[in-house]
Amino acid sequence: MGSRMPYRKSEGQESRRDEILRCAAEIFEAKGVGQTSIEDIAQAVGVKREAIYYYFKGRNEILAEIVLPQSTELLNAIQSILESEQSFPEKLKSAIKFHVGSLATGYLELTISMREPASISESERLEQLRGMWKSYSNAWADLVRQGQESGSFKPGLDPKMVAFGLLGMLNWMSRWYQPGKGASLEEIAQTYATLATQGLVED
Amino acid sequence: MGSRMPYRKSEGQESRRDEILRCAAEIFEAKGVGQTSIEDIAQAVGVKREAIYYYFKGRNEILAEIVLPQSTELLNAIQSILESEQSFPEKLKSAIKFHVGSLATGYLELTISMREPASISESERLEQLRGMWKSYSNAWADLVRQGQESGSFKPGLDPKMVAFGLLGMLNWMSRWYQPGKGASLEEIAQTYATLATQGLVED
Repeated sequence: MGSRMPYRKSEGQESRRDEILRCAAEIFEAKGVGQTSIEDIAQAVGVKREAIYYYFKGRNEILAEIVLPQSTELLNAIQSILESEQSFPEKLKSAIKFHVGSLATGYLELTISMREPASISESERLEQLRGMWKSYSNAWADLVRQGQESGSFKPGLDPKMVAFGLLGMLNWMSRWYQPGKGASLEEIAQTYATLATQGLVED
Repeated sequence: MGSRMPYRKSEGQESRRDEILRCAAEIFEAKGVGQTSIEDIAQAVGVKREAIYYYFKGRNEILAEIVLPQSTELLNAIQSILESEQSFPEKLKSAIKFHVGSLATGYLELTISMREPASISESERLEQLRGMWKSYSNAWADLVRQGQESGSFKPGLDPKMVAFGLLGMLNWMSRWYQPGKGASLEEIAQTYATLATQGLVED
């Protein structure tokens, strides 16, 4: 568990801001973002609500700050995969594997939880994160489109719709996947890669 | 819009309980479940919070009551499909089409929104709904398993994991689908049926 979230206690002096992020990450993970209030975070840090609002505009800004580093990593990964020399089916498998693996870091569920329409313009950080996720799903659509153009993937399927479908298939894991129970991340990635590339029907 | 939710104004005398359900359905649809408080519902009905709690234990019980009739319909549909004489690829396409079509009734997003762990044992109605959704995803897994056993679907892929993946692919629509904009439900169902049965890779 210790390495699942980015904001664990750091060496030496920890700023109040970092302390808030670390405590919030722990509570988000334990209770779920939807069940966590600013009051909960304040209690964990041992300060009043006002002290939290001094650093952050609200829960979603804290969430954005926590997931930004790992979202950047995910975006970098898909871009490297797109630029690599692999075949398109291999690129798709790599993208699936990386995305599934990112669940192990515990941040994906947090990220998924944050699509609350009311908070769209809550902060710059949040806008930044939304932009990143848009770029990420666009990169998946590019992978599909380029694969189609190369003749490797079937023509005629809308790349964006396929990208949303594949990401939905993977992101839904946050609803049922339990680390250490049932299938491993490796097995899940393998199953979904086969499903995405070959489909269910036996040739 | 008028026909999207089940609890619109009915003919003749409307009970207070029905009025609450109708108003709640309208607010859930307009604001999203996560952004709707009991206070909001009470205001729309024109009563105090206490009057809402007289009829319902909380927001999720109201939600369960609203989505139960349509969830029953979805469960009946998959069971009919399983028992039909169609080929397994056709059964899968029918199941996808029915599920995608259910989004047009606006209830799917509501249903998806209600997976809040804290409220699991909030009410009998909620338990009933959870049981129904479990039966529903089991039926999808059965479809996959039976298709494999018949030799129609590829062996070796875990039926449950495939079922979750397909439902995730479809349910993710609640994040991006906008009625009347972009692709039609028919096009979406067709694309995802091709993806699920044939996969992306060109033979």
